[in-house]
Amino acid sequence: MSTAFLTDHYELTMLRAALHSGVAHRRAVFEVFARHLPGGRRYGVVAGIGRFLDALESFRFGEEELAFLTEHRVVDDRTLDYLADYRFTGHVYGYREGECYFPGSPIMVVEGTFAESVLLETLALSVLNHDCAVASAASRMVHAARSRPIIEMGSRRTHEVAAVAAARAAYLAGFAATSNLMAGRVYGVPTTGTSAHAFTLLHDSERDAFRAQLRSLGSATTLLVDTYDVATAVRVAVELAGGELGAVRIDSGDLAEVAKQVRDQLDALGAHDTRIIVTSDLDEYTIAALAAAPVDGYGVGTSVVTGSGVPTAALVYKLVAREDASGVLRPVAKRSVGKPSRGGRKAAFRRIGPDGHAVAELIVPEGPDAERIAERMAVDMDGDSAEGRNRPMLAQLVRDGEVVGREPLEEARARHRRAMDELPPEAHHLSRGYAAIPTIFAARTDEGPETTPRSIEP
Amino acid sequence: MSTAFLTDHYELTMLRAALHSGVAHRRAVFEVFARHLPGGRRYGVVAGIGRFLDALESFRFGEEELAFLTEHRVVDDRTLDYLADYRFTGHVYGYREGECYFPGSPIMVVEGTFAESVLLETLALSVLNHDCAVASAASRMVHAARSRPIIEMGSRRTHEVAAVAAARAAYLAGFAATSNLMAGRVYGVPTTGTSAHAFTLLHDSERDAFRAQLRSLGSATTLLVDTYDVATAVRVAVELAGGELGAVRIDSGDLAEVAKQVRDQLDALGAHDTRIIVTSDLDEYTIAALAAAPVDGYGVGTSVVTGSGVPTAALVYKLVAREDASGVLRPVAKRSVGKPSRGGRKAAFRRIGPDGHAVAELIVPEGPDAERIAERMAVDMDGDSAEGRNRPMLAQLVRDGEVVGREPLEEARARHRRAMDELPPEAHHLSRGYAAIPTIFAARTDEGPETTPRSIEP
Repeated sequence: MSTAFLTDHYELTMLRAALHSGVAHRRAVFEVFARHLPGGRRYGVVAGIGRFLDALESFRFGEEELAFLTEHRVVDDRTLDYLADYRFTGHVYGYREGECYFPGSPIMVVEGTFAESVLLETLALSVLNHDCAVASAASRMVHAARSRPIIEMGSRRTHEVAAVAAARAAYLAGFAATSNLMAGRVYGVPTTGTSAHAFTLLHDSERDAFRAQLRSLGSATTLLVDTYDVATAVRVAVELAGGELGAVRIDSGDLAEVAKQVRDQLDALGAHDTRIIVTSDLDEYTIAALAAAPVDGYGVGTSVVTGSGVPTAALVYKLVAREDASGVLRPVAKRSVGKPSRGGRKAAFRRIGPDGHAVAELIVPEGPDAERIAERMAVDMDGDSAEGRNRPMLAQLVRDGEVVGREPLEEARARHRRAMDELPPEAHHLSRGYAAIPTIFAARTDEGPETTPRSIEP
Repeated sequence: MSTAFLTDHYELTMLRAALHSGVAHRRAVFEVFARHLPGGRRYGVVAGIGRFLDALESFRFGEEELAFLTEHRVVDDRTLDYLADYRFTGHVYGYREGECYFPGSPIMVVEGTFAESVLLETLALSVLNHDCAVASAASRMVHAARSRPIIEMGSRRTHEVAAVAAARAAYLAGFAATSNLMAGRVYGVPTTGTSAHAFTLLHDSERDAFRAQLRSLGSATTLLVDTYDVATAVRVAVELAGGELGAVRIDSGDLAEVAKQVRDQLDALGAHDTRIIVTSDLDEYTIAALAAAPVDGYGVGTSVVTGSGVPTAALVYKLVAREDASGVLRPVAKRSVGKPSRGGRKAAFRRIGPDGHAVAELIVPEGPDAERIAERMAVDMDGDSAEGRNRPMLAQLVRDGEVVGREPLEEARARHRRAMDELPPEAHHLSRGYAAIPTIFAARTDEGPETTPRSIEP
């Protein structure tokens, strides 16, 4: 399926007008970044890059798309000719999936002609705003759960196709599995699940239902024990399955209290290895509150797929440089009130301190001097740069229109574990606050390198 | 594309176990309803029914799906055989799109065998939870905007495919148009848009950009005037386009104040017919606050596609009745703490008072006596039923597996206007509160008709 119409109308009218005025083929640089981390989050998690690369390859205007644009007079003939042959031929650079990001981090950079790059705005933002929002929420939950596994089971609480991407993003951020079968098939995310209350209600008794499930799915299955009376259900479950019973799931009530009672009951019945899984409107806060409860795993639905209060990541796609009439690439930035942008193509480095923890995000003008400038900024900041190192953040994802940055989802997942270890401990506070590390721009990146650090947000 | 894998793993394992225990083909009734209206909303808006009917027809297990289920041992051979031939053969009833709903309203009812009906749970909830959340938020914005048009432009703030459904839901609830081209192509929603800041920045001057846009798109276009200095931009815009200029768009700053200044300036320049469109993180509250400002239209992005703080509608899909061993359909309901369900297949009527406003949602046991029972409940409630009427809410959408409830989107949109007129005035308060009308259940709908009204979620 073509992804070209997952796009705002105005991308096409801008193209039309720019073709008319003759500037459509000026070289241009667009940058994806967040002005702030919504919800008082301490860090964001990059996710969706792989999905964007897939979508980019399907960004083609076929007959149906062209017919619609003609019929509705969105564009003129010259624009139709351009679109019929549309292929992105430029470069894309980006932070790799699983990396953390901060306000101003240039998490994706698109270089090409204005015409070919502007068309990608809506699609790039849709993918990244959604996936980063889910991954950022999921990452906090994973940390709050410590080593206990979390299953993503929120498909029913979000758009049916968004659910597949949400399952991918949650897994990337450290969730153990998903309930979503499509995410299993398309992305290889492990899928899991056993039964709902309807299954128990379908049978003439809870005992009948448990027996049916055990016989069909084996004694390692998870039995849902809160359809009627929890204590009765647990007794019947162990009676039928013995100590082999894999797990029981509790989906209502005071989970900490019920989990304790169930653990005691299971132990008294000799079912020491039977695990307790809890579900029911969990989020990072309730997971953290269950740290001392005898819980072996969590199922999380609504909160992870809706970003736990932050359903979109506030990422924007801004023109930061374009060719002028004499062929020179010039930084540009709008001056709209309260919506600052910084012009110029940028490089980004994460400053890692001597203890291995990140201390700053350094943003400098892209160019042969970028590393040197970042190093000098670190010296200015620390007084002693030899104790740390600067980790470059941008990787090439697309070269001359060809996708070169694909990687297995497991690599992104492993990278996120490393990125989490690299964050300073205060990044893991669940309370609202500022970004865990400052973003420091080489002053006036849009006019040339200077080294006076300037911080945004805080 | 098959929609069958937009589904939770456990729907398949429940099916497997129920086939094993021999109860899979019991007749069953599932009901979609909301236990509450999240966010303190006064009413919800039904949306997504049409999308669900489309998705139902593509709910088929093809070779790829079956191969995945085999390889991952999700199901056994008996289940694979069942799935290979899967077609939904039952009935679906529902509230029509555009109707308002309240806690407990049975907005969709699925009747069939347990096997064929349980498989639809995840898909039905994904579609309805998403679309109802968007439509419910959009409806409040439309009311707050009074007769001024609103354009939906949130595609970039939500998943790229969810964006298409969001545009549809917002239009259904009264938005005038969308930026999303796919929603135009697939659902016939009017699309619109002109230019972004990048277009101005691409040109060597704002004047060049405006001239290019006017020449290419005509003087009826909307010029974005806040890239640099608003007053300068407005002056240049009118200088180039004269009083023919269609509109200016303001995307930053104190919108009420800037709109007033721009209106004064436009009028002073003789551009009395040039409209003012405002955008920039608007929601129902900021729209309401702009009521007195000289604004002619709104563009709304993030808040509408994310449900304005309520990104999912809290709808559940619950088994309310199933056949027992002797072939009798029995009401069922779980007893989980804090998650009440009412068993039994239900009929629903909206009680309309003598002034034409809704006064209650009446829920009674489905059957030949349903209308009579509802009428008696109204008498008990009012003392004089002759002054009002009961409007039946459930329509047949699928008969013996065949979709019979399709309708043009425009019909749903017109229905929502009528549904809004029917609501009592207090339904339109933007503050948090209770449902605008009580939902009254014929007592013990799960055991037989009684007429004592019992209200939930007042």
